[in-house]
Amino acid sequence: MATGWGSLLQDEQQLEELARQAVDRALAEGVLLRTSQEPSSSDVSFILMHRIPSVNGSQFSFPLLMAILVVSYAPFTLFPSLVPSALLEQAYAVQMDFNLLVDAVSQNAAFLEQTLSSTIKRDNFTAHLFDIHKQVLKEGIAQTVFLGLNRSDYMFQRNADGSAALKQIEINTISASFGGLASRTPAVHRHVLNVLGKTKEAAKILSNNPSKGLAMGIAKAWELYGSANARVLLIAQEKERNIFDQRAIENELLARNIHVIRRKFEDVSEKGSLDQDRRLFMDDQEVAVVYFRDGYMPSHYSLQNWGARLLLERSCAVKCPDIATQLAGTKKVQQELSRSGMLEVLLPGQPEAVARLRATFAGLYSLDMGEEGDQAITEAIAAPSCFVLKPQREGGGRERHL
Amino acid sequence: MATGWGSLLQDEQQLEELARQAVDRALAEGVLLRTSQEPSSSDVSFILMHRIPSVNGSQFSFPLLMAILVVSYAPFTLFPSLVPSALLEQAYAVQMDFNLLVDAVSQNAAFLEQTLSSTIKRDNFTAHLFDIHKQVLKEGIAQTVFLGLNRSDYMFQRNADGSAALKQIEINTISASFGGLASRTPAVHRHVLNVLGKTKEAAKILSNNPSKGLAMGIAKAWELYGSANARVLLIAQEKERNIFDQRAIENELLARNIHVIRRKFEDVSEKGSLDQDRRLFMDDQEVAVVYFRDGYMPSHYSLQNWGARLLLERSCAVKCPDIATQLAGTKKVQQELSRSGMLEVLLPGQPEAVARLRATFAGLYSLDMGEEGDQAITEAIAAPSCFVLKPQREGGGRERHL
Repeated sequence: MATGWGSLLQDEQQLEELARQAVDRALAEGVLLRTSQEPSSSDVSFILMHRIPSVNGSQFSFPLLMAILVVSYAPFTLFPSLVPSALLEQAYAVQMDFNLLVDAVSQNAAFLEQTLSSTIKRDNFTAHLFDIHKQVLKEGIAQTVFLGLNRSDYMFQRNADGSAALKQIEINTISASFGGLASRTPAVHRHVLNVLGKTKEAAKILSNNPSKGLAMGIAKAWELYGSANARVLLIAQEKERNIFDQRAIENELLARNIHVIRRKFEDVSEKGSLDQDRRLFMDDQEVAVVYFRDGYMPSHYSLQNWGARLLLERSCAVKCPDIATQLAGTKKVQQELSRSGMLEVLLPGQPEAVARLRATFAGLYSLDMGEEGDQAITEAIAAPSCFVLKPQREGGGRERHL
Repeated sequence: MATGWGSLLQDEQQLEELARQAVDRALAEGVLLRTSQEPSSSDVSFILMHRIPSVNGSQFSFPLLMAILVVSYAPFTLFPSLVPSALLEQAYAVQMDFNLLVDAVSQNAAFLEQTLSSTIKRDNFTAHLFDIHKQVLKEGIAQTVFLGLNRSDYMFQRNADGSAALKQIEINTISASFGGLASRTPAVHRHVLNVLGKTKEAAKILSNNPSKGLAMGIAKAWELYGSANARVLLIAQEKERNIFDQRAIENELLARNIHVIRRKFEDVSEKGSLDQDRRLFMDDQEVAVVYFRDGYMPSHYSLQNWGARLLLERSCAVKCPDIATQLAGTKKVQQELSRSGMLEVLLPGQPEAVARLRATFAGLYSLDMGEEGDQAITEAIAAPSCFVLKPQREGGGRERHL
């Protein structure tokens, strides 16, 4: 949107006023981050109890919340970015193909083993994930409902003829974030354009409610699990600055009367258990869905946490994602998918889906030691990629009922 | 709501979890206050300019907002308060009577002069307001459209028979606040009850959108003023912690394509002017409505600010409120209204309105020096009032087109 509005960017006073308005609107709309100084609200000293007489004469306690817990806004651009509608439609259309592809990969144990064999030798993290994957396969998978919430990240590539093309940077199959905050940014960008008197342009900004879409996926998995009193267990980090992004999904679930309990891996170690049917319980509450917002990086795991992850994976609760789907999202797998003929093997008899997928491939290069990796590194040094716009779209929920 | 839920208040762990959920929901819904450390966002060092290549090849600047401006939540009760529906209906019904009464008082120069004569002798602030009032009357009132946004504050009185009665504590005729934040608290209280599984009770919490009602009053005044490009001038304090309450109204106006400019009295002194028709201009922009969120306390006025207030009052812009309406809201006037026979004088031929109003009078006592004042002080010392629940209701906008 900024392109062609050059004069706007010259008027510093107006930019400052716009920034003030935008920041206040972002705060009011809940585009929030906890500050790095104060990333946890576990301090409950903010509860003050007041004893006051009630209308009917009895004294009662009266919890009044009034201490300081400070938050700030999540970084955002002052102006929205122009997205060619054809590319947006293309991204929507190809998302189901990506979801089915991730699903196919996650079910193809031979492909995962072969693809990740070199990674496992060097990378302890992937090796640990793979160990759990194999253990669960050996024992037999108790889980019967699968849920993937995948986010595809795209860039626009400028072609030689000046046209733009949609290129996928990566797909996130675990803890894909910012669906909650992204639900609230259209209101902020509309506000900025309305302040400028650009009401027509403001009206063109599409609404986007990925937090509702994500919650509907979780709600469907919860429903298919089929236990009215079971909870959704959100695996959270101890210090989570991005909690408001997660709360947006929790709020959507609560509105459907589905209760979410937030716990750390450590809590699972201490209070999680399986019954003889491998149903998962936390604090004596049955868990229908485990939603990971932790556990996607090596630093997230102590030995104890690996034990907790294994317990969760062994259970019949719907994991979002199950460990095979997490492995399907590794860079090494994404690189393998771009090899000639590979999509045809994984999605047999679906040439149209294969063509749609391949059109978005930007080319991922192996950095493995060996001939292929060496060549990729040489090419990268010779012609570094330019820095381009990187908008993000949420993929919808996906359910597979086996 | 807390009454009868005693067991809830005994379970500290549950209360802590509820408090965490409630605080996060309040923050996400925009129930915000600036912190006392950082009450102004005038620091614009948060604008970072990034130069990046665009899709079409030109370089452009890309304002990205990402510095820290911290806010916190406004104090709120963890649970909603039970309000007997009959009392709520009574408060709604009597609000129009109060609005008409305030309007009648503001137009009754003789009543105001007589009532405030003793106050003016002792109280510089009221004397200053009254001076401006008289000056404007003498010159002739240029303003033709009047807008009052009044807030009545009530308590429930416990009668001897155990029943509850609605008693008005005071009416605010200038800068009545918390309409914006109150619009967002029902969602917080519903959340708390839903977390407790009390979905039926949660569904009973009424929605309340006073910020929309207040904005509609201002929009109507703006429309009656009748100049398509004129602005609403919000007179703001330099350090305003409660800005999000005000922004909620601004946002409602912007959604109707009515632009609000926030300025201080000092700005009015420097850049405000009247043309020969006493139309008000700020920075060369015509002002249709002046909405005061400042100017209601002695500390808000320097000599320069009194000059700015006079300028505003002399203009034909719709003041919300005009200075006579501000005077109509003084404690001394409210006390005078409770004198026997006074309502009948001010609202002749309206015995039903008078009865409705009088039923809500709690009794206001003069603290003037003299016989009446002395007696009030003696009575207060002998029988101090007990501390009771004090819920607030917003009065709707009121327009008078002369």
